Amino acid sequence: MPHPTRREFLARTAPAAAAFASVPRFARAFRTLQDGVDGERLASRMEAIARIGATPEGAFRTAGSDADLAAREAFTGWLEEAGFAVRTDLAGNLIGRLPGTDSSLPPLLTGSHLDSVPAGGNFDGVAGSIASLEAAAAIAASGAPLRHPLEVVDFFNEENGKTGSRALAGEVTPEEMDLPVYGGLTLGQALARVGGSPERITEAALEPGHYAGFLELHVEQSPTLATEGIDIGVVEGIVGIRRFRVRVSGFANHAGTTAMGIRRDALVTAGRFLVAVHEETQAWPGRQVATVGRIEAHPGAPNVIPGAVDLTLEIRDLRMETIEALYQRFQELGREIARRNQTDITFEQYYLSRAAPCDPLFIDTLEAAAESLGVSNVRMPSGAGHDAQSIAVLAPVGMIFVPSRDGISHSPREFTSVADITSGARVLLESLRRLDGALD
Amino acid sequence: MPHPTRREFLARTAPAAAAFASVPRFARAFRTLQDGVDGERLASRMEAIARIGATPEGAFRTAGSDADLAAREAFTGWLEEAGFAVRTDLAGNLIGRLPGTDSSLPPLLTGSHLDSVPAGGNFDGVAGSIASLEAAAAIAASGAPLRHPLEVVDFFNEENGKTGSRALAGEVTPEEMDLPVYGGLTLGQALARVGGSPERITEAALEPGHYAGFLELHVEQSPTLATEGIDIGVVEGIVGIRRFRVRVSGFANHAGTTAMGIRRDALVTAGRFLVAVHEETQAWPGRQVATVGRIEAHPGAPNVIPGAVDLTLEIRDLRMETIEALYQRFQELGREIARRNQTDITFEQYYLSRAAPCDPLFIDTLEAAAESLGVSNVRMPSGAGHDAQSIAVLAPVGMIFVPSRDGISHSPREFTSVADITSGARVLLESLRRLDGALD
Repeated sequence: MPHPTRREFLARTAPAAAAFASVPRFARAFRTLQDGVDGERLASRMEAIARIGATPEGAFRTAGSDADLAAREAFTGWLEEAGFAVRTDLAGNLIGRLPGTDSSLPPLLTGSHLDSVPAGGNFDGVAGSIASLEAAAAIAASGAPLRHPLEVVDFFNEENGKTGSRALAGEVTPEEMDLPVYGGLTLGQALARVGGSPERITEAALEPGHYAGFLELHVEQSPTLATEGIDIGVVEGIVGIRRFRVRVSGFANHAGTTAMGIRRDALVTAGRFLVAVHEETQAWPGRQVATVGRIEAHPGAPNVIPGAVDLTLEIRDLRMETIEALYQRFQELGREIARRNQTDITFEQYYLSRAAPCDPLFIDTLEAAAESLGVSNVRMPSGAGHDAQSIAVLAPVGMIFVPSRDGISHSPREFTSVADITSGARVLLESLRRLDGALD
Repeated sequence: MPHPTRREFLARTAPAAAAFASVPRFARAFRTLQDGVDGERLASRMEAIARIGATPEGAFRTAGSDADLAAREAFTGWLEEAGFAVRTDLAGNLIGRLPGTDSSLPPLLTGSHLDSVPAGGNFDGVAGSIASLEAAAAIAASGAPLRHPLEVVDFFNEENGKTGSRALAGEVTPEEMDLPVYGGLTLGQALARVGGSPERITEAALEPGHYAGFLELHVEQSPTLATEGIDIGVVEGIVGIRRFRVRVSGFANHAGTTAMGIRRDALVTAGRFLVAVHEETQAWPGRQVATVGRIEAHPGAPNVIPGAVDLTLEIRDLRMETIEALYQRFQELGREIARRNQTDITFEQYYLSRAAPCDPLFIDTLEAAAESLGVSNVRMPSGAGHDAQSIAVLAPVGMIFVPSRDGISHSPREFTSVADITSGARVLLESLRRLDGALD
C-alpha cells in the first residue's frame, strides 16, 4: 500500500497522529541523557509504524497483512542499521541478533509484537517492540557489549493466538494452521506470507534453557499506572484464566398466571449468582477477578418466566490455587442460591490458561533498575495474556508495564506518552545490563 | 384435510387422545343429573374438535386455517342442532342466537374461542366454547326459555390478537389487517376465509349496552385450582399489563486487567435489579406479578466486562394503580442500585393492556351458583388476557376458570378433565339463569 504523506496521515488518523504531535518536545529532553536511549528516534519509529495500515477506523496491522509485512520490513531495517543480524524463524518470528563477548552463553531475549487487532491502536505491542529496539540499539552503539548474545524479537501473530511465542514453547499444533485469521487468510497462509513455514511449525519449538531470559515491555491495558501517576509497573506474573459455561435450570411458565411464590425462575437464580460472584471476589483479599460477560435467558420472551439461563464465568489470578478456591466457593454459593427457588446450577470448564509467574530475580532487577534511574514503580499482576507467558516455559521472564491512558487498548484510542515509553526503555536497558552481569 | 379414523387419531395424537380416553366413565355419572348438561355429549364434541388440525406436534387450529374452518363448521352444526340461528359478523365472530321471552331486552352472551396457537392443545378456548354450547343447548332444550335473547359466540382469532372481541369493542384498526398470521396469510386474508370483512372491520364495533352481559369459561392456565383441588375459580378480573424496556449503562472493559473495585459492570447492576424486582414484588401484599423474561449483555464476550445490559420488565395486576406504584418503586430501586457501581438505568414503556375488572354482580352470581350446585370455588385474578377483557368495555362480564393440570397451556400437554369442564358448564348454566332473572 502507498504510504500517505505526514499531512495525509494526520488527516486520516487524527487520534493516532495526535499521540505523536508533541514528540519532539519530550524527545529533546531525553536526548540529553547519557544512556543512549533516544526518545526522539523512538517517537519517530512509533510514528512510522502508526502510519502503516492506518485507517479512520484504527490500525489494521493484523498478522500476515500487507501492513504487518511493511511494519516487519521497517523493523528489519532499523535492526540492521543498529548492527543486528536479522532472520525469520519457522514460526514467523522476526529476530535480530547481536553477538556477546562470551559465545558459550545463551542469548538474552527482548521484544514484543508489531501486529494489531483489526481496528486497533499503535501502542499495544508496538511500544514494547520499539522500546526493545531502542534499548538494544543503545547497547550496540555503546561500545560496551553484553556478555550474552542479545536477541530482539517481533513475535508473529500475538493478537490472534500468540502463534509465534507459543510455537517456541512447542504449544502450536499443525491443525491451527487451518484456522481463519483476519483478512480472508488461514493462519498458515499468513505465516507463509511473513516467511515462516506452516508445514514445519512444530520444528520451531526450543528447548528450555535456550534463552538466558526474556524481558518484555508492554502497555498496561488498565488505568492503574495512569490513574496513580506511577511511571512503570513491575509485573509479578501473568494471571491464569479459567472459563466456565454455567447453566441454571428452572421451569418456564406463564408470566401472568404463575404466582411469585411458586416460580422456579432461572434468571432470578442467575441474577443472585452473578451478584454473589462479584461480591465474593471483591471481598477476598488479593487481586483476583471474576466476570460474567455473557448471559442468555430461555425462552427469552417478556411474558414467559425464564426456564433456563446460560452464562459465562471467567476467573483470573496469579495463583491457580486461588482460582480453584474461588471456583469451589462459587459452586457452593451457586448451589445454595439455586436451591432457594428450586432451580439447579451446573458448571462446565471450557478454557484454561495457566498462570505464568515472573522470575523473582527479574522482578528484583527491574525494580532496582527503575529505582536507580529515579523511575517510580509498583509491582502488579498482568491481567491479560502476553508472549512472555509462553516464553516463561523456556526461560525466566520479566515484564515492564507502561501507563495506558484510561486503560484503553485494542482501540485506536489507546495512548501512552512517548515520555513514558522512553522511561520504560531506559529501565529495560538498565535491566538488560544488570541481568547480563547476574545470569549465567 | 381428511379427518383420521379414531385409531389413527389415537396413534397420531396420543396426549390429546388420552385426555378423552376416560370420558364415558365420567360422562355417564353426569348424565344422571337433571339440569340438562350432558357430560358425554360435551366430551364427544371436545374430542371432535381435537381431531381437527391434530398433528404429532400438537393442534394447529390457527385463525383462518383449514382446521379453524372445519372447527367452526362443526360448531355451527351443533348450534343449529340445538335450535340456534347462526351468523358470522364482520369481524369473523361465529354467533348462534336463541330468542328470549322479552324481545326488548339486550342479549346475554356466552362463549370463548376455538382457534389454537401453532402446536397448541385442545382445552384453551375449546373447553369454554363447548361448555357454553352445552349450557346454551340445555336452556334451549329445557322448555324454560330465558327472558333475554341468548347468544353463543366463537370469537375470531383469540390467540394472535383477540381480533374478534377487540373488533366488537372498536379496538381493531384497518392497518392490523396487513399483519401476518400463522400459515402464510395476512390477518385480513384469514378473516375473509372465515366469512368476515377486512374492508369493513371497523363497522363490527358495538355500542356499550348492546349486550346485557357476558360469561366466559376458560381453563386456568396456572396450577392453582389443580394443586389445591378446587373445582372452579371465580375470576375477579383480568389483570392489566405494562411492559418496559430497561437499559443499564456502565462501562465495558477488559475482564483481566480491570480490578473489581473500579468496575462499572452493567450486568452486576442488572442482576441486583432483577433480584430486587422479584423480592419486592413478592414482599408486597397482593397477587401482583413482575417478570424479567429477556436479558442481553453487551458486548457479550466472556472476557469483557458488560458495558450495557438490555432487559424486559413486565408488571401485571388487577389494579392499574398497583402496577404504577410497583413501577415507581422499581425505578427508585433501580436508580439506587445503579448508583452503587456508577451505572445508569433507564425505563421505556412499550406495551400497555388495561385491567378489566369483572362485574361484582357477576362475581357474586357465579359464586352463589357454584355453592348451590356443591361446586367448590375460589376467587382469583386472571393473569392472562381473554376475550372477556375486550367485551368488558361493552357490558358487565364474568369468568369461570376450570383447573389446568400442572398449569400447562399453549402446549399439546394441556389438560382439563371432562368432569371439571362439565362442573364448569353447570355453573355457567345456573349463572345464566340467575343473571337472566337479575338483569334488565
